[in-house]
Amino acid sequence: MSMQTGRRVGVAFVGMGGAVATTAIAGIEMIKSGSNRLDGLPLAGLPVAGMADYRDLVFGGWDLNGDDLASAASGHGVLTKQDIENGAQVLKGITPWPAVGSAKFCKNIDGQNRIVAKDHREAVSVIASDLRRFRQESNLDEVVVVNLASTERWPDLSDPTLNSTAAFEKGLDASDEAISPAMLYAYAAIKSGIPYANFTPSVAADVPALLELAKEMNVPVAGKDGKTGQTMMKTVLAPAFKARALHVDGWFSTNILGNRDGLALNDPNSLQSKLNTKGTVLDSILGYPVEDHLVHIHYYRPRGDDKEAWDNIDVTGFMGQRMQIKVNFLCKDSILAAPLVIEIARVLDLAKKRGEGGVQEQLSTFFKAPMVKNGHGPEHAFGKQEKMLRDWLGVN
Amino acid sequence: MSMQTGRRVGVAFVGMGGAVATTAIAGIEMIKSGSNRLDGLPLAGLPVAGMADYRDLVFGGWDLNGDDLASAASGHGVLTKQDIENGAQVLKGITPWPAVGSAKFCKNIDGQNRIVAKDHREAVSVIASDLRRFRQESNLDEVVVVNLASTERWPDLSDPTLNSTAAFEKGLDASDEAISPAMLYAYAAIKSGIPYANFTPSVAADVPALLELAKEMNVPVAGKDGKTGQTMMKTVLAPAFKARALHVDGWFSTNILGNRDGLALNDPNSLQSKLNTKGTVLDSILGYPVEDHLVHIHYYRPRGDDKEAWDNIDVTGFMGQRMQIKVNFLCKDSILAAPLVIEIARVLDLAKKRGEGGVQEQLSTFFKAPMVKNGHGPEHAFGKQEKMLRDWLGVN
Amino acid sequence: MSMQTGRRVGVAFVGMGGAVATTAIAGIEMIKSGSNRLDGLPLAGLPVAGMADYRDLVFGGWDLNGDDLASAASGHGVLTKQDIENGAQVLKGITPWPAVGSAKFCKNIDGQNRIVAKDHREAVSVIASDLRRFRQESNLDEVVVVNLASTERWPDLSDPTLNSTAAFEKGLDASDEAISPAMLYAYAAIKSGIPYANFTPSVAADVPALLELAKEMNVPVAGKDGKTGQTMMKTVLAPAFKARALHVDGWFSTNILGNRDGLALNDPNSLQSKLNTKGTVLDSILGYPVEDHLVHIHYYRPRGDDKEAWDNIDVTGFMGQRMQIKVNFLCKDSILAAPLVIEIARVLDLAKKRGEGGVQEQLSTFFKAPMVKNGHGPEHAFGKQEKMLRDWLGVN
Amino acid sequence: MSMQTGRRVGVAFVGMGGAVATTAIAGIEMIKSGSNRLDGLPLAGLPVAGMADYRDLVFGGWDLNGDDLASAASGHGVLTKQDIENGAQVLKGITPWPAVGSAKFCKNIDGQNRIVAKDHREAVSVIASDLRRFRQESNLDEVVVVNLASTERWPDLSDPTLNSTAAFEKGLDASDEAISPAMLYAYAAIKSGIPYANFTPSVAADVPALLELAKEMNVPVAGKDGKTGQTMMKTVLAPAFKARALHVDGWFSTNILGNRDGLALNDPNSLQSKLNTKGTVLDSILGYPVEDHLVHIHYYRPRGDDKEAWDNIDVTGFMGQRMQIKVNFLCKDSILAAPLVIEIARVLDLAKKRGEGGVQEQLSTFFKAPMVKNGHGPEHAFGKQEKMLRDWLGVN
Repeated sequence: MSMQTGRRVGVAFVGMGGAVATTAIAGIEMIKSGSNRLDGLPLAGLPVAGMADYRDLVFGGWDLNGDDLASAASGHGVLTKQDIENGAQVLKGITPWPAVGSAKFCKNIDGQNRIVAKDHREAVSVIASDLRRFRQESNLDEVVVVNLASTERWPDLSDPTLNSTAAFEKGLDASDEAISPAMLYAYAAIKSGIPYANFTPSVAADVPALLELAKEMNVPVAGKDGKTGQTMMKTVLAPAFKARALHVDGWFSTNILGNRDGLALNDPNSLQSKLNTKGTVLDSILGYPVEDHLVHIHYYRPRGDDKEAWDNIDVTGFMGQRMQIKVNFLCKDSILAAPLVIEIARVLDLAKKRGEGGVQEQLSTFFKAPMVKNGHGPEHAFGKQEKMLRDWLGVN
Repeated sequence: MSMQTGRRVGVAFVGMGGAVATTAIAGIEMIKSGSNRLDGLPLAGLPVAGMADYRDLVFGGWDLNGDDLASAASGHGVLTKQDIENGAQVLKGITPWPAVGSAKFCKNIDGQNRIVAKDHREAVSVIASDLRRFRQESNLDEVVVVNLASTERWPDLSDPTLNSTAAFEKGLDASDEAISPAMLYAYAAIKSGIPYANFTPSVAADVPALLELAKEMNVPVAGKDGKTGQTMMKTVLAPAFKARALHVDGWFSTNILGNRDGLALNDPNSLQSKLNTKGTVLDSILGYPVEDHLVHIHYYRPRGDDKEAWDNIDVTGFMGQRMQIKVNFLCKDSILAAPLVIEIARVLDLAKKRGEGGVQEQLSTFFKAPMVKNGHGPEHAFGKQEKMLRDWLGVN
Repeated sequence: MSMQTGRRVGVAFVGMGGAVATTAIAGIEMIKSGSNRLDGLPLAGLPVAGMADYRDLVFGGWDLNGDDLASAASGHGVLTKQDIENGAQVLKGITPWPAVGSAKFCKNIDGQNRIVAKDHREAVSVIASDLRRFRQESNLDEVVVVNLASTERWPDLSDPTLNSTAAFEKGLDASDEAISPAMLYAYAAIKSGIPYANFTPSVAADVPALLELAKEMNVPVAGKDGKTGQTMMKTVLAPAFKARALHVDGWFSTNILGNRDGLALNDPNSLQSKLNTKGTVLDSILGYPVEDHLVHIHYYRPRGDDKEAWDNIDVTGFMGQRMQIKVNFLCKDSILAAPLVIEIARVLDLAKKRGEGGVQEQLSTFFKAPMVKNGHGPEHAFGKQEKMLRDWLGVN
Repeated sequence: MSMQTGRRVGVAFVGMGGAVATTAIAGIEMIKSGSNRLDGLPLAGLPVAGMADYRDLVFGGWDLNGDDLASAASGHGVLTKQDIENGAQVLKGITPWPAVGSAKFCKNIDGQNRIVAKDHREAVSVIASDLRRFRQESNLDEVVVVNLASTERWPDLSDPTLNSTAAFEKGLDASDEAISPAMLYAYAAIKSGIPYANFTPSVAADVPALLELAKEMNVPVAGKDGKTGQTMMKTVLAPAFKARALHVDGWFSTNILGNRDGLALNDPNSLQSKLNTKGTVLDSILGYPVEDHLVHIHYYRPRGDDKEAWDNIDVTGFMGQRMQIKVNFLCKDSILAAPLVIEIARVLDLAKKRGEGGVQEQLSTFFKAPMVKNGHGPEHAFGKQEKMLRDWLGVN
């Protein structure tokens, strides 16, 4: 178990009423209440000096839905009635701050708890002031922002506005439509010296304009798109197929899920963002293009938050003979995601403390599309990513 | 592709008429005939100085079944009619040498092509003379022995005969029943300075008596039990569950296969040997005992050599919530095994050339129950095993 | 919905504290409390005159475990905490009557709530008096006995004691060991004019001695071995394979379950009883022996009552080409079984009312090994069984 | 086995060079050559008077690809090299007649072997003359047309041209675009008094105009869309779920296939035709709408003709508890389809001989969207369909 440091770290979620955020908060609450079951928390029990203890995390955040977290959680179907009751006091006591939203960037999700801001600049200013207030009122040593909002549509990355800090700031002045809500949060955080992680597939801290800013300000950033279920398995299995020289002829991946994320992905634009971040993993690990790599995600209500993935992999082995591997993963999206979010926040805080700004590549293992420091391609192989993280943490 | 070295290496199989050996031979024959499909050969294309080229391998070996390899292969159902026709000349031209067998150690497999030997000493002498003849007649630079015979029953390891070279040699003089056929082959090989690998679960080179001899003679040995299908997947997946702190509550593994191996495993004693080598992998990787780890192997004829594994894994994640992963592997036992056998032979030959005797731990990735040099436990995690091998080979 | 008849029917369970009985009782309780979700009850909503309404069922029974049903149920993990709370009053208020048990017939299950009887005759007399008392105290129009106790070992059917009523009654006098506990219950019920069903694989009402008695007394009997999960699917799929002339080369069935039934099946003798009733279904439907029909049941705790079946079926079609079907059933044993038990009780009661004694073949659809009236073999095909039942009920 | 009747029946396929047709022809050829393996032929061995023997079938047909059937077959990957060699003489000797095609109705499939016809009337005339020539040259007692061509896009069924024979014939005169190629074949066949079956999802004999004509001419017609894999399983399983009162909350069906059919379905219009015929099956059997019934078909090349279906079914049982069934069908599309096509042809011929024209409902079991005689809905439940067929055939 991590040592109690006394260091208080605030975690501000974009999308605080969502399934992942409420699960993360309830889970940590359970630990604060004395539970010593740390299942699912990848860094639990590692002796890392300076890392915040789970019990020292404090939560805040924005959401378009202004319900208190207990009622939000009861709609997601992730936490059991018992879980919610146990954490009731705390969850009921938390109401998300008004959020920035845009129907243009994310069609199927909407809400009434909106920042009243006449333009981009005012929105940024409200976000920054939310963060300041959070730090003061909760008496925090550090704050970290993690974006958990629904997937936005893919922006036009060739837009000059997104390609330098200077152009971006002009774009803010002009309320340029190329700038998405996620980017407003990222900008406000980085500009405030606060680490920022993209756990969604949305493009934000990884546009050149914001990368430049993060580097200049020496603020840790990380992303993007949490690697929880099917893609995680892909990055675990593909290196083994490569090591055994089993040629991957095709990889068919289908997913069914019935939560708010699934609904958001029913907007083809948001889906495309998701598929973009899923696509290249396989080719990158194997070193050749898998010609029949298909990935499908379907909104299927009977499962609620219990996502199910079915993968079929066709490989060719010795003497050209064909074999098949099928993987059926009955997982719980938010249960897999929430602890990763917590560990990302703890690592970003530690990076800030160590004075290491810019892209935090050591977090690659938690992302489908890891951000990298300079031109080189990201590492996708799960085992190598794990080694990177453990080396950075200084554990064997 | 490996560089052509001109170095001719003989591979002598115990169980040469079996599915794995005939597949290995036919596959290499295909390469000699000009095919450049090297799928399934893990070390293909790696730039390792001094390693024998696939085209420089020459095959020999023993089998209780004296049929030529073309007819043996046609009974196994691994090679297509086309494969056999393509390699017909060569396969028809190879007839296994008479073999040592014992109904006591392996009940369900028998044959007429037996070494006529009045006692252990004479059997050893025939084996050694087979190896000398093979080297001379085929004009070989080196010979390697790989045991592919059907699984023998687990011997009584506490028997003093197996615990020192001196006692073992006395046991040979007395035709001691504690000494199994596999041990006779291993002894004959090592005593002749010839590297020996146990690809079956049988206990042979890994009894203390023979380990001592291998070390003294500086002869490379490796084993045991080829890691091809289900166990390979287990050692790929378990490290990922550990990295994600997903607690494995149970792992149910069932296998159906219809080849000669399956028939041999219908003898409960042989099955036990197999399960012994499969059992500890999981606990060793995870660091805690998986209480409900069940492994079953069933002889099911419709599949022939096309082994199928179905695994169900129950894990507990964040907040005590349960998830399931199911893996269905439709594999071809011999197609997965044959290329590993070839790589093991090439690595053993290289070790001999480098003057490195005793247990070759760098081959761990190819074995379910890797032999180790000194007291420490074996490494089972697939990724770490791969790194060990690549480090030894001197590739990235 | 069935019409309210006012007719009160008592259902006395052998094994009342078990998962199936407590689930049946809680479920009916839910309906009595006003729920109109009748999912899983096959005969719900059919307009059958004279059939008892679900709300008119009253429950009693025996169990070696004397705990009240609320605590029994909480150990089975079938009912949610919520379910138990909702039915708490009723479940807490029911305590099973002391039961007859025999370590000789069922090894792994034991308990302290035993009938104190010096011999078979006294045990029968206690059972009969329990039934009389149940009828009187609960003011019932009819009583039905359903055996849900753990599977007993297979008796020696050639024993003359079991082959005529006269011999059986002499056996009772002599406390003959050929007579199992299940037979004592069946005898006591039939002799009291009370319908009896074997929902377990145990041999009871189906020994010739008791069949003779049931016929003579004109008492309805039915059995045996509830057809819930894997075998149900088998009898649904096999007729289709036959209709399409797909030849079944092999059918591999494996089951994992972690409830008390699973534990009882860890006794190889009990397991054999279970496999006996599962075995012939397939050959009977297809009209030829499936040579590789393997059925395995494994005790695997992580699932509790959530039984999982995995089937692999190999078929040969046109031009001798091979195909595979795999079925993975994540079911809940007691949730599937409980409503069948309820319907069996209602149908037996109706048969009694209609004056139809002896074997009730129309109940075949609910059993793995349906009892039949005279020499002819049982019907196993699911569709045909359904038709038999609906014809008997007089619904289209 | 059917009795040899001496009656020669010609089967003319639309799409003769396709995988299904070439498989059907090669399979019957195998039987003519003496094979007595009749696996996959549903009506083999039934004693039905007057039904043509498999050995008395003669094949002809049209295809846009003019290659001989041996080369066509070798491209499909259904028949083994051995199969093609065995039937080589016959297959090489058959070249499809030039066919009617329309890029408007089926985008992704094209070919050069086209009927040169200036308008609809001339196309019909060529088709009719092909059928006359086939009958004469092959000395046939009867001819049957079966449409196996790639799926066409769904026509506008409200178009008046398709709604009466008179309007349709005017449409022919005007080369009306509402009339698809499949309709031209159907019209030519029916007008020639030749039975016609739609084995594809294309709309043809089932437009009111052609139904009217078939009735008037007393010509048997049947269709549509062969029920082979996933939908067949659906109609087998759904009646069982209904019988057990398991409420189907969702049914997710995905298919991967890599043959010409799969490619054709990459055209969204053709896919829609396919999904239309697949969609209603479930609701019709269950008696309520399944809200989450998703069906997906994906073109995935590694499998070739080896179609794979994966279904996940969510059901609610007793006390509202949820269960899942997953079915993975590794099938061979053409191997399942070809024998159905043969049986349909034999039954249509028998209907003609019996003087029974119009829609042949007894063939429902072979179709995803069975045509019916009058307003009533089609029967989809597999067991009931089987009974209809066996009753019509006069076998028990």
